[in-house]
Amino acid sequence: VENNVADKHECIFCEILNGRSAASVVYRDEHCIAILDAFPLTRGHLLVIPQQHQQHIEELPEETVSYLFAMASRFSSALRLGGESNATAVLLNNGKAANQHVPHVHLHVIPRRDGDTAMMVWRYVTRFINPWSYIGRSKRLSRQAARWQELLKPE
Amino acid sequence: VENNVADKHECIFCEILNGRSAASVVYRDEHCIAILDAFPLTRGHLLVIPQQHQQHIEELPEETVSYLFAMASRFSSALRLGGESNATAVLLNNGKAANQHVPHVHLHVIPRRDGDTAMMVWRYVTRFINPWSYIGRSKRLSRQAARWQELLKPE
Repeated sequence: VENNVADKHECIFCEILNGRSAASVVYRDEHCIAILDAFPLTRGHLLVIPQQHQQHIEELPEETVSYLFAMASRFSSALRLGGESNATAVLLNNGKAANQHVPHVHLHVIPRRDGDTAMMVWRYVTRFINPWSYIGRSKRLSRQAARWQELLKPE
Repeated sequence: VENNVADKHECIFCEILNGRSAASVVYRDEHCIAILDAFPLTRGHLLVIPQQHQQHIEELPEETVSYLFAMASRFSSALRLGGESNATAVLLNNGKAANQHVPHVHLHVIPRRDGDTAMMVWRYVTRFINPWSYIGRSKRLSRQAARWQELLKPE
């Protein structure tokens, strides 16, 4: 796996991939890692991140693109069938102007539940500035990660 | 290509695929169609729709899933390189609770431009109820479709 940039710049996802920063890891293989978003839009909001550092999706090899979306689709299915969400949103913000905060490709898998739209929009607006979101966060994310690991385990 | 449901229920995307409803078509092949969203969140908002009717992404064959996301990625790249947007969002609302309005899989490709977040959120909230959006819409979409056809043409 090519991971050619971690030493050349600071990228929080490369740091996490290299084990130099902590994260709530839910799934990991040689192509990608799935972690819980530290600023979730809904409970259990996941990020699927390729091992290879590129900012834009079209800079990744085609098979990596396929793999990432296949994983997102698999997670989406597992969350729905596991009764954890009625639906999911799979979102790629491809570029800075699309509010891509970390310049390393990542797919959001956002569990959706009936009637959560207003809450999600509210969290979208306040996610980085809401002090309540920091209280008990690491415990909450650890519990969530343990649950999701179970649910997203390959068959 | 399997398209097994158009006669069994009313699905606006099946109607469009079968030529029974009009749409601003930007691209078409044996696996998918790309049309302009009639209620765009930003200028040039595209939908990539598989020929096969399924509500959820995990109900489609894996190779169709790959193909759809590869197309979305290609369109994203073409819009960025063509200077039409600085970035794009690729979004799949997978299930009704995720605000999937049409129960036939579709990927949104939403062109993003610097500073358009507030406008996009505003349009998200008002997209179906804003009377201005209906004025001159079909002309606007036709012009847009012609431009996008040129831009998204396969090499």
